[in-house]
Amino acid sequence: MSIHLTILGCHSATPRVNAFPTSQYLEINNRHFLIDCGEGTQRQMRKYKVGFSKINHIFISHLHGDHFYGLVGLLATYGILSREKELHIYGPKGIKEVTLLQLKISQSHAKYPMIFHELQSKESELIFEDDKVSVKTIPLNHRVYTNGYLFTEKEKARKLHMDNISNYEEISKADYLNIKAGKNITLSTGEVIPNEELTLPPKKALSYAFCSDTKYKPNIVPIIKNTDLLYHEATFLADREDLAIKTKHATSKQAAQIAKDANVKQLIIGHYSGRYKDITLFQKEAKEIFKNTYLAEPGKNFKVDE
Amino acid sequence: MSIHLTILGCHSATPRVNAFPTSQYLEINNRHFLIDCGEGTQRQMRKYKVGFSKINHIFISHLHGDHFYGLVGLLATYGILSREKELHIYGPKGIKEVTLLQLKISQSHAKYPMIFHELQSKESELIFEDDKVSVKTIPLNHRVYTNGYLFTEKEKARKLHMDNISNYEEISKADYLNIKAGKNITLSTGEVIPNEELTLPPKKALSYAFCSDTKYKPNIVPIIKNTDLLYHEATFLADREDLAIKTKHATSKQAAQIAKDANVKQLIIGHYSGRYKDITLFQKEAKEIFKNTYLAEPGKNFKVDE
Repeated sequence: MSIHLTILGCHSATPRVNAFPTSQYLEINNRHFLIDCGEGTQRQMRKYKVGFSKINHIFISHLHGDHFYGLVGLLATYGILSREKELHIYGPKGIKEVTLLQLKISQSHAKYPMIFHELQSKESELIFEDDKVSVKTIPLNHRVYTNGYLFTEKEKARKLHMDNISNYEEISKADYLNIKAGKNITLSTGEVIPNEELTLPPKKALSYAFCSDTKYKPNIVPIIKNTDLLYHEATFLADREDLAIKTKHATSKQAAQIAKDANVKQLIIGHYSGRYKDITLFQKEAKEIFKNTYLAEPGKNFKVDE
Repeated sequence: MSIHLTILGCHSATPRVNAFPTSQYLEINNRHFLIDCGEGTQRQMRKYKVGFSKINHIFISHLHGDHFYGLVGLLATYGILSREKELHIYGPKGIKEVTLLQLKISQSHAKYPMIFHELQSKESELIFEDDKVSVKTIPLNHRVYTNGYLFTEKEKARKLHMDNISNYEEISKADYLNIKAGKNITLSTGEVIPNEELTLPPKKALSYAFCSDTKYKPNIVPIIKNTDLLYHEATFLADREDLAIKTKHATSKQAAQIAKDANVKQLIIGHYSGRYKDITLFQKEAKEIFKNTYLAEPGKNFKVDE
């Protein structure tokens, strides 16, 4: 069970020479996801050696240009690369029309099945689930309809505790499936051996929460409670909270407060406004509230293992 | 009178780490134009210090992604930069609908007047003219409707040849406007002084022709005849002319043949296929037919002065 996050872009508004709009590549429990896709994302993917063909699911938080203008180019490139596999795209209502019109007008070679999952709910909902991972939306509060995404590994079954099992001659291989399924074992004496004695806990299921863009929204805390890794936007420093309120963004201090209240293990901040030349100020401000804070930077990797 | 061309991107198909799709910035006779706008163009503009606010006219050759997927991002950025000036966009029919839909769905702040000039003609036509420059289309032959563009400086008036004028006491300042207007002067003796004696030729009007994407199309030669600077696509080397024919692109050899037949002064080639690792092979091949051939490369500048 592991999380490996690669920051492809983490700046707000317009692409600049060393500032790339939001995009992240997430490997979680052997699943591979792309989150947001600002202009230039496909080049960043090549730069940081993200395998294009591994990705089958793309999650777009909202339809501001700095979070999705790179999507059509990536989809067209998949066509040029002769992709045949299904690609699932999750995002706000409207994403399908605008994307398909662009692909049509540019006569792209994208012939693979492209499945759009358009989101409209204002409540957190389960939007993806397989045997490895589930993905839930985190409704955010921005100038347009926006969701964050919570990626959670599936709990594995408890493992056989062979040392303890060997204490009971009567327990045989025939019982193993029942033990793995969580059942207690009743011996011929009538004694009940609790499942906890016969098994070891599985590796912990990890989770990653992506929250961008949003104003300070404390009611996301229950959804992301105890998350291992949280990315929360921090467009401004606290000295410009007025601008954060006006533009429905968060300050670094607010991002840290969310991390603290949600009792997450690690916080990554990003989506820095271009007005700040020294992004270490964001980390400094956040650390006063939540010590385990790190800065998103293009090409930076964050790993969590359990 | 001068031409200053900056290559922002010059590779075909998909953006890669060091390969940028087509875009060029042209300064000609104090006018500033952007030609094509593949994904990432606005970042390249910043990298090579192109003044965003100088550009009032954008020319898109055709609606393949590698020539226009960067347009919407640039237009949105102009909005963020609080542009108020009119922006004129020239390109194939369809460009307006797809661009406006993207700007609408992303709730861009682009409030400045955006004037689309949608092209449909299969004949060369004059699409822009002011007192400095004219722009004509160069109908090309590609898989989709495509135009190149010919940018031509306006001829200036002949200049007064003061040394010669001073030989005639009878000619006064009152005659200068007539002389500048090209008229001969009749002296009181009845002698006619020809305008050529009283004036010097103006600086030569320069021209730049942009031809991409296209198969080998010899009938563009009359339109670009004697052009000072020609950019012609060269996607393949002659060894893969089969692919060039199939995809309606040109080989380096064919680009050089066009340059030779049109008697241009200087040829720039670009739009290299990703299959070639060593682009100097394109120059080598072209030079066998047209010696004055140069390679387009990101950030490279070409200047013509007269």
